[in-house]
Amino acid sequence: MNQYQKQVDEQMKKLGWHYWQPLSILARLFEECGEFSRLVNHLYGEKPKKTAETEQNLEEEIGDIIYTLACFANSQEIDLDKAMRKSLDKVIKRDKGRYDKEGS
Amino acid sequence: MNQYQKQVDEQMKKLGWHYWQPLSILARLFEECGEFSRLVNHLYGEKPKKTAETEQNLEEEIGDIIYTLACFANSQEIDLDKAMRKSLDKVIKRDKGRYDKEGS
Amino acid sequence: MNQYQKQVDEQMKKLGWHYWQPLSILARLFEECGEFSRLVNHLYGEKPKKTAETEQNLEEEIGDIIYTLACFANSQEIDLDKAMRKSLDKVIKRDKGRYDKEGS
Amino acid sequence: MNQYQKQVDEQMKKLGWHYWQPLSILARLFEECGEFSRLVNHLYGEKPKKTAETEQNLEEEIGDIIYTLACFANSQEIDLDKAMRKSLDKVIKRDKGRYDKEGS
Repeated sequence: MNQYQKQVDEQMKKLGWHYWQPLSILARLFEECGEFSRLVNHLYGEKPKKTAETEQNLEEEIGDIIYTLACFANSQEIDLDKAMRKSLDKVIKRDKGRYDKEGS
Repeated sequence: MNQYQKQVDEQMKKLGWHYWQPLSILARLFEECGEFSRLVNHLYGEKPKKTAETEQNLEEEIGDIIYTLACFANSQEIDLDKAMRKSLDKVIKRDKGRYDKEGS
Repeated sequence: MNQYQKQVDEQMKKLGWHYWQPLSILARLFEECGEFSRLVNHLYGEKPKKTAETEQNLEEEIGDIIYTLACFANSQEIDLDKAMRKSLDKVIKRDKGRYDKEGS
Repeated sequence: MNQYQKQVDEQMKKLGWHYWQPLSILARLFEECGEFSRLVNHLYGEKPKKTAETEQNLEEEIGDIIYTLACFANSQEIDLDKAMRKSLDKVIKRDKGRYDKEGS
């Protein structure tokens, strides 16, 4: 992930772009999530499917969300590898806590 | 609002449609919110504006969000007038609470 | 709805508040939608229910979303009644278009 | 990222959990995005900051979003590395197209 963040950053510089302000990237995140949502509903919900859309497009929509998150992370100097590690650890701890409370 | 919910319901029946299951309407809500988000970012964010989009379109996107909420509300027999009243009252109470805590 | 927008506006003035900039209200909209989403998932999804949450809370979460939309609308002088009417009309037209295309 | 997806999967199996259906994971995604949104608004928007929240929490919220996306990807056998690569390539192509159209 570290490498990916660097690639996004190099690309931005090469294109002469700058990162948007946080609230603008956030708005973009919701635009991308909305497109993902539309597709998930087409494929797995009650909305009638359009034949042209496939699971392949899902890959693309998820990619766009992560790309947007990488832009946000770069603009605020957030390390996504650390972020991902934390969330993984949290699930384990939360589960342990549950057992300690509920358990034998 | 009550009247609007009825109109949405009559239209659904006239078209022979049924309300989707809650999670599908939720996905639709996020699709609509994503479109609204894209437009807000175009008009007020750092994303370059496209000339064809105006404040008029904002009206349409907000309308689509409320329409989707009305579908959800109808499917779960929620009274939107009551819902709106509650939120208005909550803001007043929250503000009062703040004064009671902070104030003289 | 017109009346509701006025009440929101009067309340804002009484509290001495001003409307946030569009991108901030948008961020708030997603915060409210996220809370609604959590609750819908609790009640209708696979996430284990917490007993304290009921359909009543749904009413509250939807109310908060509409309140936020009313703030956005007021800040940009958008008429929600017109917005809602448009979306209702659009569904009818879209449906008509479908019949015209798909067959007699 | 590949490795991260495997770790998420191993953890799920160890905990005896199964992946939710797509629409439920989507709802969870919006719950997590809503929490992220609330925090971004606190830190960079007009909402008054609460002192306890810092940039560190941003890391956590983004981590939760990516964790949720990894669950979705695992449940649908989507390769996130490929997804991320595609989005990066798309930005380059889109930019090239722009130069071809606008440029000298």
